[in-house]
Amino acid sequence: MTGDRQRIEDALLAAVQTKDAYLNELARHLIVAGGKRLRPVLTLVAAQVAGGPALHGAVQGGIACELVQTGSLYHDDVIDESATRRGVETVNAKWGNLQAILAGDFLLARASEIAASLGAEVAGLLGNTIARLCEGEIEQLRHTYDVSRPEPSYFSSIEGKTASLFSTAARIGGIVAGLDRPVIDALTEYGRAYGMAFQIVDDVLDITATDEQLGKPAGHDMVEGVYTLPVLRTMSSGGVAADELRDLLGSPLNAVVCDKALSIVRAGSGVEQALSAAQAYVTLAVEACALLPAGAATDALRTTPQHLLDSL
Amino acid sequence: MTGDRQRIEDALLAAVQTKDAYLNELARHLIVAGGKRLRPVLTLVAAQVAGGPALHGAVQGGIACELVQTGSLYHDDVIDESATRRGVETVNAKWGNLQAILAGDFLLARASEIAASLGAEVAGLLGNTIARLCEGEIEQLRHTYDVSRPEPSYFSSIEGKTASLFSTAARIGGIVAGLDRPVIDALTEYGRAYGMAFQIVDDVLDITATDEQLGKPAGHDMVEGVYTLPVLRTMSSGGVAADELRDLLGSPLNAVVCDKALSIVRAGSGVEQALSAAQAYVTLAVEACALLPAGAATDALRTTPQHLLDSL
Repeated sequence: MTGDRQRIEDALLAAVQTKDAYLNELARHLIVAGGKRLRPVLTLVAAQVAGGPALHGAVQGGIACELVQTGSLYHDDVIDESATRRGVETVNAKWGNLQAILAGDFLLARASEIAASLGAEVAGLLGNTIARLCEGEIEQLRHTYDVSRPEPSYFSSIEGKTASLFSTAARIGGIVAGLDRPVIDALTEYGRAYGMAFQIVDDVLDITATDEQLGKPAGHDMVEGVYTLPVLRTMSSGGVAADELRDLLGSPLNAVVCDKALSIVRAGSGVEQALSAAQAYVTLAVEACALLPAGAATDALRTTPQHLLDSL
Repeated sequence: MTGDRQRIEDALLAAVQTKDAYLNELARHLIVAGGKRLRPVLTLVAAQVAGGPALHGAVQGGIACELVQTGSLYHDDVIDESATRRGVETVNAKWGNLQAILAGDFLLARASEIAASLGAEVAGLLGNTIARLCEGEIEQLRHTYDVSRPEPSYFSSIEGKTASLFSTAARIGGIVAGLDRPVIDALTEYGRAYGMAFQIVDDVLDITATDEQLGKPAGHDMVEGVYTLPVLRTMSSGGVAADELRDLLGSPLNAVVCDKALSIVRAGSGVEQALSAAQAYVTLAVEACALLPAGAATDALRTTPQHLLDSL
């Protein structure tokens, strides 16, 4: 996978190359800052479940997904007024909101171009996925600071903003490898379940990890009014702690109130319940692998999601 | 064309339909506010130069371009902090920047999906065009408040931010109609020249029109530090007026200074020179029509660009 990793990095940089040196600098900024490249790796492995080498089309499809992810981060950082990301200044903080919006659009446009080079089906799929990312973000926005946020709103939001792109990353791998439709559908379902587990674990980490581990203050989502599964489960668990948490939330939090809210959520059963939900999605992902051809790539897909939970 | 107009409006509203009522409201906002629909009309007419009825594919291709235009306006209005557009509040002013960024992304995503439904070539073309829009905007941004802005920067910027989408709108019409490649290329060149003329005239109007005609204060571009062709030509014309204008510009303008700068540009030869440049692009557009099949649609294409100048 080491050589494949390098191919992903090279292809990412080539994709954002443009004759405009300034735009090139803006577009490269978060890409060279690093990242786990979960989506392109998923595309590459998915394309290999029937055996065979890593395909050029899979690299291209994978980086299209990564460019969508990165472009979305540019826009998210404007929306959240974030100052740092991946250990570097955000584009909005370093150059300005204008630059971050335009460079984000540019990354999304490049992703569309690359997807089109893989055929109309992949292009349509990626366009549909970007629309679903927006729907997921809007769903989250609608319930910002809403202590009565219904749980289906949470699941629907993370399915749109996270799971849809994992799902599409895996599906594109299957499409470009020319796999049978039932296998492509199983990869799609795998990606969706993996993405759901990934986002729930990410939301748990925002509660349980230290500021140092996160590279940002813990409880950031709560401060911003985004009430995720561990928080919603704590509030719905009944009892004094639930009432106390509900009273603290509903508006922006200062550091003292945030610490208090964090203590309540960490002490209750909400985190454990959220991890159970994540485990259920990991199980779904593993089950989807039963429909894939046996081999090293399928083995890799089968074991990867559980690492999300085992590493906690 | 009346029935075609209605088909465009219906298709636009259908394209932004989504199960999320809030996102639907955001995405419809500037569409229902109206607009001249220059790009989809261009696609429809271009698709008819070989005769035949207005095609479903041309309507879809046209609205894909219109959705790109509208999505870009959502982002432009965030960037410019604009409060009104097409006679209504902007999305950023009415709901917020977050909503405007996401809804703009959603419109761009829908455009990509629709383009993909017309095949990989159209999808790739539209993705490439969105990237060029970003390049054009970045080029403009780089020379904001730059009184030494070179003229090639102006032409390169408007080619990216305006002419590329006109060009693509016409080209898609030719592609979906299955026209011969030389005809498709002539339509592409036609759209580019028409778009260049359109933007230059638009930039002249920002100087010469009244606040009432514009629906915003005249000289808005100068206030924002965007020095367009009539301004650049006035500054490069030499003499006292050129020096005086250069001294006024270079930083944000208050209303008094803006009026003074407007008077200088209006009194000089810069406006006339800019209109000559626009006329040259109109001539290029007319010449491109010589390569198109004779007929009513080609006649319409041939006469349309001159109206930009005759209506001044």
